[in-house]
Amino acid sequence: VNALVLMTDFGLKDGAVAAMKGVAQSVSSALHVVDLTHEIPPFLIWEAAYRLRQAAPYWPPGTVFVVVVDPGVGTQRLSVAARDREGRVFVCPDNGTLTLIAEEIGLESIREIDEVAHRLPGSDESYTFLGRDLYAFVGAKLASGGLAFDRVGPDLPDVTRIPHRRVRVQGNTVLGSIPVLDVQYGNIWTDIPKTHLERLGVRMGDRVEVVIRHGEVEHYREVVPYVKSFGLVGPGERLVYINSLLKVALGINCASFALRYGIQSGTTWAVEICKLGPGS
Amino acid sequence: VNALVLMTDFGLKDGAVAAMKGVAQSVSSALHVVDLTHEIPPFLIWEAAYRLRQAAPYWPPGTVFVVVVDPGVGTQRLSVAARDREGRVFVCPDNGTLTLIAEEIGLESIREIDEVAHRLPGSDESYTFLGRDLYAFVGAKLASGGLAFDRVGPDLPDVTRIPHRRVRVQGNTVLGSIPVLDVQYGNIWTDIPKTHLERLGVRMGDRVEVVIRHGEVEHYREVVPYVKSFGLVGPGERLVYINSLLKVALGINCASFALRYGIQSGTTWAVEICKLGPGS
Amino acid sequence: VNALVLMTDFGLKDGAVAAMKGVAQSVSSALHVVDLTHEIPPFLIWEAAYRLRQAAPYWPPGTVFVVVVDPGVGTQRLSVAARDREGRVFVCPDNGTLTLIAEEIGLESIREIDEVAHRLPGSDESYTFLGRDLYAFVGAKLASGGLAFDRVGPDLPDVTRIPHRRVRVQGNTVLGSIPVLDVQYGNIWTDIPKTHLERLGVRMGDRVEVVIRHGEVEHYREVVPYVKSFGLVGPGERLVYINSLLKVALGINCASFALRYGIQSGTTWAVEICKLGPGS
Repeated sequence: VNALVLMTDFGLKDGAVAAMKGVAQSVSSALHVVDLTHEIPPFLIWEAAYRLRQAAPYWPPGTVFVVVVDPGVGTQRLSVAARDREGRVFVCPDNGTLTLIAEEIGLESIREIDEVAHRLPGSDESYTFLGRDLYAFVGAKLASGGLAFDRVGPDLPDVTRIPHRRVRVQGNTVLGSIPVLDVQYGNIWTDIPKTHLERLGVRMGDRVEVVIRHGEVEHYREVVPYVKSFGLVGPGERLVYINSLLKVALGINCASFALRYGIQSGTTWAVEICKLGPGS
Repeated sequence: VNALVLMTDFGLKDGAVAAMKGVAQSVSSALHVVDLTHEIPPFLIWEAAYRLRQAAPYWPPGTVFVVVVDPGVGTQRLSVAARDREGRVFVCPDNGTLTLIAEEIGLESIREIDEVAHRLPGSDESYTFLGRDLYAFVGAKLASGGLAFDRVGPDLPDVTRIPHRRVRVQGNTVLGSIPVLDVQYGNIWTDIPKTHLERLGVRMGDRVEVVIRHGEVEHYREVVPYVKSFGLVGPGERLVYINSLLKVALGINCASFALRYGIQSGTTWAVEICKLGPGS
Repeated sequence: VNALVLMTDFGLKDGAVAAMKGVAQSVSSALHVVDLTHEIPPFLIWEAAYRLRQAAPYWPPGTVFVVVVDPGVGTQRLSVAARDREGRVFVCPDNGTLTLIAEEIGLESIREIDEVAHRLPGSDESYTFLGRDLYAFVGAKLASGGLAFDRVGPDLPDVTRIPHRRVRVQGNTVLGSIPVLDVQYGNIWTDIPKTHLERLGVRMGDRVEVVIRHGEVEHYREVVPYVKSFGLVGPGERLVYINSLLKVALGINCASFALRYGIQSGTTWAVEICKLGPGS
């Protein structure tokens, strides 16, 4: 049985997500419908793109993801279905949601969804809930085999991508940004791959200097140990570690780094990790 | 496979909903158990009635809904199972939960649940958690075919209904109320059907005057465009649109109307939509 | 089909839980994966132990629970799989999570998980997300039959248990504590079994004196009716009742006792229930 995985910024306080699940169950009662999250902050497409990249690679080929963070509902942006190189399918508005899947996994085929042919029957008078009236319906038909990927609509050359800065190295320093927070615990997740630290010659157990800036303002500067996990420093102490996506992260054992130092996420938040010279 | 859909005001912070799901899984491991929402504000039966009406029509015949918002637990109110005209079944306390399903879809058969015959075995000493000890158990047996609807208990002539005001038209104005908010985004959902606007002769692209009152206090009065969707007005601008239930709604593009103007929901919140005369 | 039930302190705002579910779906697409809760307050192992004991007994034999509240990730604590006397299986760090299952249901067999043999293939460089890289993977293999319980790793004599005070009787008074709150409604859940009240000779309809202390400070003292359910006292009135775990609890009809009197939970919060003498 294929899974149909849903992600939205709808929250779970009302009946919106349940209406989408009802549409899916009406298409096929055999589907496993699973929530990725519905707590993407309203309208934050970038956050959806990141959470998708965080979870999708752990799902098997054939899984269909329906992602609806859609501030442009009712405007001219397209709707797409895309298949990644490992056989997962994504159904969403073409608004940047697939930026990181396209970059880090790669898309093999992209189709524009024909919204006239594939709309939920009887939903023509509803204009503001394509999650229910289009995306859940198309996603469920794809996941259950009732619609072949190639019949979704015409080929598209690429998806819309959100521009973002790339990590770079200058001498003994790696420069990156904070694409997202580890919101539940307040850890800082950077976009710096573990391999960049290794290229600088930094090893587990070393200490590194960390700087965090927002625009011109320096919010944090400290020499911190680079260790495997939280339990290796005392409660309240800071650490640099490798997160579950194999990127460099910053935390405080048993406390929130983000709250303590007032750090947020976004492309305007810059992080520098500096290898210390001998004797420092 | 039939789905068993759960809605409560229990929240998801503790083990209450999971205990209900365990009871259902013990009845039949083949059932699909799905959450409608568990974040109905505590004790607000009306909100549960509305969320049920929002999601239930999208589920196929045979789906069983278990709804537990039950401030009267342990008092004389009855427990019911009801089947709507399209073959869905609802299991809940008879406290008004089914008001809008009865009015807008229609109930075909109503049974009082025999609480002695159908209680979870071994739960006799527990008096305050009928969600687990009665409703989830009966719902799972109905959904899995282990109990026929007609064996639930004696016929009832009707369910308890919560009284509420009806939409009416006066001259060029439709008068309605705000049964519920679109809580995640802060949009205002009225009970005025799209067809009432059409009867006034209001068309997409027209501007209408909107007034919102709470008791004697006027909270909002403005002339606003009536458009298809949010993206058709600028960020921060107000719009009248048709929501996913085909009712008139009010929003601000990319912001919360409810927060901005201090609007809440309930029968004491009145909305007027007035067609403008020629030249206005 | 066996169920795989997940509980963590990860929250549902990001992709962490969905990554665990993807791992499980990759092991077997037939599994029912269900959430117990993911809103355990970060790092509170005791709260996880209590919520597990609240929900697990309602699930059938063969159910596998994966519980990850793991402030010690990356340190020397073991990982365990344990089977209770009724055939349910629990997979978690050995940090006290199984305290109440061990005490109140009883464990029949305990295995240390061989973290080298049973880790998710390809996850060797990730050190901080054993929920995904070990526990979900092992749990899914156990639930789907792909791994026999006896092959998990070597036998262990017992699980780690969190010490806690025991209820005791002094004359006409039962002394207990507040292991947890009924967080959604603000009711006070004590650890005093219903049977202890009965042994004192207290019956439904009697009034009892209740005292709540935190350390030396008395937060509450009042004579309160002991009744079956909330609806039997007026709105705003206090009551003693038996909760869904057959323990003594305190509430206010339609309001939060915890908020009203500033009560929290933990072993430092003491409760006394005193049977009143004749004529009082």
